[in-house]
Amino acid sequence: MASEAELAALHADLTAKQADVNRTGDEVRAMKGALKEKKVDKAEVDKVVAKLTALKLELKAAEDAYKAKAGVSKDSSEGRKKFREDVSNALERRLFYIPAFKIYGGIAGLYDYGPPGCAVKANILQFWRQHYVMEENMLEVECPCVTPEVVLKASGHVEKFTDLMVKDVKTSACYRADHLLKDAVEDLLEKNPTFAPDVVLEHKNVLARVDEFSADELGALLTKYKIVAPETKNELSKPYPFNLMFATSIGPTGTMQGFLRPETAQGIFVNFRDLLYYNGNKLPFAAAQIGQAFRNEIAPRQGLLRVREFTLAEIEHFVDPEDKSHPKFKHVKDLEFLLYPRAEQLGAEKKPVLTKIGDAVAQGIVNNETLGYFIARTYLFLTKLGIDKTRLRFRQHLASEMAHYAQDCWDAEIECSYGWIECVGLADRAAYDLKQHSEESKQPLIAFKRYDKPREVEHVVVAPDSKVLGKMLKKDNKVVKEALEAMSEEEALAMQAKLEKDGEAPLTICTTNQTFTITRDMVKIAKEKRTESGKNITPSVIEPSFGVGRIIYCLFEHSYYAREGDEQRTVFKFTPLVAPIKVTVFPLVSNAKLDEEGYQISQAMTASGVANKIDTTAISIGKRYARTDEIGVPFAITVDFETLQGGTVTLRERETTEQVRIGTKQVVGVVRSLADGVVAWSDVVAQYPKVEAKEEK
Amino acid sequence: MASEAELAALHADLTAKQADVNRTGDEVRAMKGALKEKKVDKAEVDKVVAKLTALKLELKAAEDAYKAKAGVSKDSSEGRKKFREDVSNALERRLFYIPAFKIYGGIAGLYDYGPPGCAVKANILQFWRQHYVMEENMLEVECPCVTPEVVLKASGHVEKFTDLMVKDVKTSACYRADHLLKDAVEDLLEKNPTFAPDVVLEHKNVLARVDEFSADELGALLTKYKIVAPETKNELSKPYPFNLMFATSIGPTGTMQGFLRPETAQGIFVNFRDLLYYNGNKLPFAAAQIGQAFRNEIAPRQGLLRVREFTLAEIEHFVDPEDKSHPKFKHVKDLEFLLYPRAEQLGAEKKPVLTKIGDAVAQGIVNNETLGYFIARTYLFLTKLGIDKTRLRFRQHLASEMAHYAQDCWDAEIECSYGWIECVGLADRAAYDLKQHSEESKQPLIAFKRYDKPREVEHVVVAPDSKVLGKMLKKDNKVVKEALEAMSEEEALAMQAKLEKDGEAPLTICTTNQTFTITRDMVKIAKEKRTESGKNITPSVIEPSFGVGRIIYCLFEHSYYAREGDEQRTVFKFTPLVAPIKVTVFPLVSNAKLDEEGYQISQAMTASGVANKIDTTAISIGKRYARTDEIGVPFAITVDFETLQGGTVTLRERETTEQVRIGTKQVVGVVRSLADGVVAWSDVVAQYPKVEAKEEK
Repeated sequence: MASEAELAALHADLTAKQADVNRTGDEVRAMKGALKEKKVDKAEVDKVVAKLTALKLELKAAEDAYKAKAGVSKDSSEGRKKFREDVSNALERRLFYIPAFKIYGGIAGLYDYGPPGCAVKANILQFWRQHYVMEENMLEVECPCVTPEVVLKASGHVEKFTDLMVKDVKTSACYRADHLLKDAVEDLLEKNPTFAPDVVLEHKNVLARVDEFSADELGALLTKYKIVAPETKNELSKPYPFNLMFATSIGPTGTMQGFLRPETAQGIFVNFRDLLYYNGNKLPFAAAQIGQAFRNEIAPRQGLLRVREFTLAEIEHFVDPEDKSHPKFKHVKDLEFLLYPRAEQLGAEKKPVLTKIGDAVAQGIVNNETLGYFIARTYLFLTKLGIDKTRLRFRQHLASEMAHYAQDCWDAEIECSYGWIECVGLADRAAYDLKQHSEESKQPLIAFKRYDKPREVEHVVVAPDSKVLGKMLKKDNKVVKEALEAMSEEEALAMQAKLEKDGEAPLTICTTNQTFTITRDMVKIAKEKRTESGKNITPSVIEPSFGVGRIIYCLFEHSYYAREGDEQRTVFKFTPLVAPIKVTVFPLVSNAKLDEEGYQISQAMTASGVANKIDTTAISIGKRYARTDEIGVPFAITVDFETLQGGTVTLRERETTEQVRIGTKQVVGVVRSLADGVVAWSDVVAQYPKVEAKEEK
Repeated sequence: MASEAELAALHADLTAKQADVNRTGDEVRAMKGALKEKKVDKAEVDKVVAKLTALKLELKAAEDAYKAKAGVSKDSSEGRKKFREDVSNALERRLFYIPAFKIYGGIAGLYDYGPPGCAVKANILQFWRQHYVMEENMLEVECPCVTPEVVLKASGHVEKFTDLMVKDVKTSACYRADHLLKDAVEDLLEKNPTFAPDVVLEHKNVLARVDEFSADELGALLTKYKIVAPETKNELSKPYPFNLMFATSIGPTGTMQGFLRPETAQGIFVNFRDLLYYNGNKLPFAAAQIGQAFRNEIAPRQGLLRVREFTLAEIEHFVDPEDKSHPKFKHVKDLEFLLYPRAEQLGAEKKPVLTKIGDAVAQGIVNNETLGYFIARTYLFLTKLGIDKTRLRFRQHLASEMAHYAQDCWDAEIECSYGWIECVGLADRAAYDLKQHSEESKQPLIAFKRYDKPREVEHVVVAPDSKVLGKMLKKDNKVVKEALEAMSEEEALAMQAKLEKDGEAPLTICTTNQTFTITRDMVKIAKEKRTESGKNITPSVIEPSFGVGRIIYCLFEHSYYAREGDEQRTVFKFTPLVAPIKVTVFPLVSNAKLDEEGYQISQAMTASGVANKIDTTAISIGKRYARTDEIGVPFAITVDFETLQGGTVTLRERETTEQVRIGTKQVVGVVRSLADGVVAWSDVVAQYPKVEAKEEK
């Protein structure tokens, strides 16, 4: 990678040459004007034009020189692309992940996790369980992926879980309309750096709103920007909604429509009643689920970030809508991290702000303590995994982004080479989901909220007199009785007033539009006081939802670097928590006794539950260190001839490349403690003699 | 539950009464014969008939008495049903599992795991990873559930993964043809205990072969047994195959057919090449995968045992087909457990035999060491989970059950109230899967087998002379050259002989049916010796495949019992490894200080990674013990007033109900060691003072 200084020098050269070209260009233009007016002769002009041509060649060379170096700088657009290619190559080469069904050409948006990727994922999920399910006493459930239509109708997915699609009118190839628009506008801006500021702003406004346009709006913009099918240049259809759920049929009759769940949350909502009961009918409580979800993306891209099958880890925290305080908020309120509230996004600076979560809740920026608590806990979760806290922000949804029922939504966004990526969504969804399922299933999904002390509550009681109604209204008596009982408190009080005043009142049956005359003897309406110990409520739900694959990919990018001075020696700086393998064991040279010693240490590690690998290839220790760096193994043990004599091995830590000498009897326990995060490397260095060893190559 | 002695007495009474009835019946028949012949008078006969009637009533009473008691004995059919209901009730009541989408009426064959079930499952999967993936250094992968058709065509699932179905001709309700036949024949046998032995045998033979019948055979049997639709008694259609895969469409065009995978194995096979490379191109190696699989069962039944979505844990161990020895087989060869080989199933005894796995392999009963090794490791896995070893057997597939390519197959079958259930399949599938995918994808799925030392191998080399061919055959020269090169060694040698003898030989191009005359100058055919360091082979695969849900259900049954003398106090005797919660903390009475002390212990447990629960309800300790017994919590801590004064708590173990007194500072470490299986309860009892406490109620 080019050094900062080197890049700066190249850039200065580039700028100077650009200025030369600009200046000489002006000169040429001026002289051509003068030539027309015959103030100069042609030979003079030609001389300056030749000078300009030469300068342009020099500029081109300077540009190439800069690009070649800057291309590996993370901060330029090309640098990001190069970096991404490097990371992806390293990941695919070591089977962290690979395109699924590769021997059959692969399927867009489907990936396999190979051995190290699988181990990283298992470690992250185990930590998620510890950090959320165990520490917060959540109720974990596991529900099927195959889901009947009725559930996803209630949740709104059957109707609304769509993206706008366009088709190539000749080949029927499909595209996401918003992606085509975004690419076209970005391309336009990039190719026209000379657009006037107001024109640029106009296009940028289109980009900013690209997620929000309706089918008609998108259609109009596709026409306006003259967008055609990217491969064939054929005309495109109008945008129309495509449902992203994979459809299937449940059972042999072919009559029961089902879908693969697009999220795991619905499985929790439909179990709310049983879970509440399991929790002793007490609020608040949270349920959690880890599992596969499926979205039949129109055109998957961005590798692991937009896929058709992925693992979600979701929490539904059910809480009294009138009391969203959290008893443990006090433990996190002083945590400070990057918040990007609505006001900042709409403001001039457009920058996230380092904020204490306690202040954000106190100032009403974050809606409530429980939501704030989960934001803070998510910050801790992600940074403990190894996500760079300077490239992590919590962005609040703009009002226009939020569903009508949502109280407040924040996304944990992580910056990677693709930009800022939504990895965790944290939303206060109010009572929406429970109400929807309650309505569709006709089952009450409510909790009983017990008051601190019983309350006296006034009710309006409507008591029709069945006998009188029967006598007076004959066959109509039943429908009138029902209508009387169905009156709202206001309606009943109005009727009561009219009855007292006029002795009779009209009652219209809305379904049949018949009107009956109600007299005083037909119904008694009175206010009554009752003592109530509590009331039924529909809980609010606060939902933190984790896209596990996205977090993993961002973590890969944040963990990847090349050792100073050697671009080939790449490292994943995984924490011991995340690392797929915690320690490798190397017999120094090919020797049966060393190998045997190595196998014994390896077996002891396995028995102790420490993921390890033994490498008995006879290549140099330096190369073997490099190999384990490449998959992010944090520790390495070398078995050498001192091991056979003195019963000690060397233990090396990846980031510092420091080594200590340690007894074979101690090393398993020490590595386990390091892997569990119980002791730090600095503790080990303090306790055991350091070995001054060069990293061989 | 009735005691053995009680049941035996009732049964003796029943047998005696049955004998009385039989004897008197014979007497009646004899006397009726005598009456016809006028050897006795009618009054005498009537007296004996009256006696028979009385005896029959007594017999009925004895039968009822026996059934009432035997009904709760595990060993009778009714007892098993009662036991199953009890277990299921306990499991559903405590949310181990529940029908999925219950508020919408549920979907047959889809279940949710609730909090304790989810924890048991996570514990079992974690142990599976430790026992197989870590200890055997397997390569774990994770592949998508959504699978393109081409993969499942190659594997044979598109064509053959079917069950035979019949439809109610009027309502179109669907049934599994073999299930209807089985139910009908079993019912027939049960209702006709007086069938002659040869008739019984005939029906039992039908039952034994119920899985094997073709559509036509099943159709004929359904007609023979006059089987109709169970609910409506309508006529049934002929049996026809129904594919059990859930179908879906991948991508927006609707043109790419996909399925939900019916097993996880295919994801491993298609990645064979990359995994071999990852393993340094060395055999043997094993890959493993845990994940969801899907089967659109025609008519799911038997609860968790036959479901439409389930978790599989599968291993594909790739091995040299010429060397299936296993270096670690020596460690397990002396393990002795129940094997049920083919010969025993076909023999007179029809009983599994306690066998040392080493002997079974040595005697060729189990095909090879690697298969034997996995059988033994699976025995260890299941019994460590808590499966009763007397109700676990490994049953070999009969030749008629095995696929044509399989070398040997064994099922780990666990006995539960539904009978012997296949929970793990262990199969040597030879090279079938890799060859199928290689053929379909046109990608070589092979390994290079290096010889111990290079070998000299004789080949027949065919070298066409392009110049001569071109001159003589003009435009046909290319096709002839290819045909010459494509000859088998035999064909080439035959041509060589003919060329030497006659100077020319005919060559027929099979695709065009043209025949050319080949002369000596056109081609050189000679034997050549070459030194080869190895050869390409298609590895054999040995596949242990675990039905996780089935294992879990059988484990639930094997773990469930009622405490002696109290049928209401039911227990799941989960091992600490499996238990969803390892320890509960009980403040003795409702008291803020005791609660605070309890919370601190609970938090320390959580921080230490020990799943725990605090129960501050003020109900009696005995009831709280019973509550935790009911979900199988192995340990309980009671915080009492001594805790506040002396800093000690009581620790109770579930199976012995013994209690010790132990310091609050020690208890977390001790429980963690107990939960990890590092120390046994007996060690704890030896070290800490025992408390003589009655289990309060």
